[in-house]
Amino acid sequence: MTSSVIRIDPKLDLVLERDIDVPVELVWKAWTTPEHLREWFVPKPWTVTECEIDLRPGGMFRTTMRSPQGEEFPNLGTYLEVTPNERLIFTDTLLPGYRPSPKPFFTAVLELTRKGNGTHYKAIAIHGNAETRKSHEDMGFHDGWGTVVEQMVAHIKKQAP
Amino acid sequence: MTSSVIRIDPKLDLVLERDIDVPVELVWKAWTTPEHLREWFVPKPWTVTECEIDLRPGGMFRTTMRSPQGEEFPNLGTYLEVTPNERLIFTDTLLPGYRPSPKPFFTAVLELTRKGNGTHYKAIAIHGNAETRKSHEDMGFHDGWGTVVEQMVAHIKKQAP
Repeated sequence: MTSSVIRIDPKLDLVLERDIDVPVELVWKAWTTPEHLREWFVPKPWTVTECEIDLRPGGMFRTTMRSPQGEEFPNLGTYLEVTPNERLIFTDTLLPGYRPSPKPFFTAVLELTRKGNGTHYKAIAIHGNAETRKSHEDMGFHDGWGTVVEQMVAHIKKQAP
Repeated sequence: MTSSVIRIDPKLDLVLERDIDVPVELVWKAWTTPEHLREWFVPKPWTVTECEIDLRPGGMFRTTMRSPQGEEFPNLGTYLEVTPNERLIFTDTLLPGYRPSPKPFFTAVLELTRKGNGTHYKAIAIHGNAETRKSHEDMGFHDGWGTVVEQMVAHIKKQAP
């Protein structure tokens, strides 16, 4: 169930939903542990070269993505809500310690709901205006976020005993 | 004690500290109840004409300030941390529901520490760059925030039995 403070606006926001056949606990671990996150967080052949996680409100969420040509793209943001196995909210609008960011773009809400032995996976990208939504869509939100969910599920299954 | 996620940077941030002779519980109530907040939140003869509070992370914090000439200034932001009688963090960098704001300016941290029958009151304004800090200082941060603490203490004492 979507957090009651989150109000999705179809004109401003983007949503991706999937039913996946891995348990919420392993999805949570994949999202919140650097060594797991690096393996699936960007569509291959892009890679994550750095990942730092301080999993608490106001704590750091930092990644560096590397293109196949070797160009690096750092991302720095902070967590807003951390409810294990249920909800993770982070933003690049604030830096760690809630300092206003020089490059505000969006807030991400990840919501996990147990469904049998699997998970209903819902990712919401919240933007401040229609232009930002459109640029995110044009950057390939649906394909990109969809691809990484598949990569995440494959990574989780590879780890399973 | 300042929250461990908050890192004050003197080049970017502004801090106001006071020892005041009213208990933390009444300071908390003055900050989190619209009918009390309206009475002290802006330096008189300015007034607060509207105040809406949804006291939870992601919840609305909205005020409208009115100048002696009758001009109105709306402010809209959201709470980030709500720890009763201890710590309140809010920002105008995000709107309610964590939506990126069109007018990001600062994050405010209020920290209350019990001291005898009174309170050590610490307010921190966190900015993204030195220019924003300077404009906040030029707007009268120290006088303004100092004045409203005095107004708050006087309001609380007036309410006391």
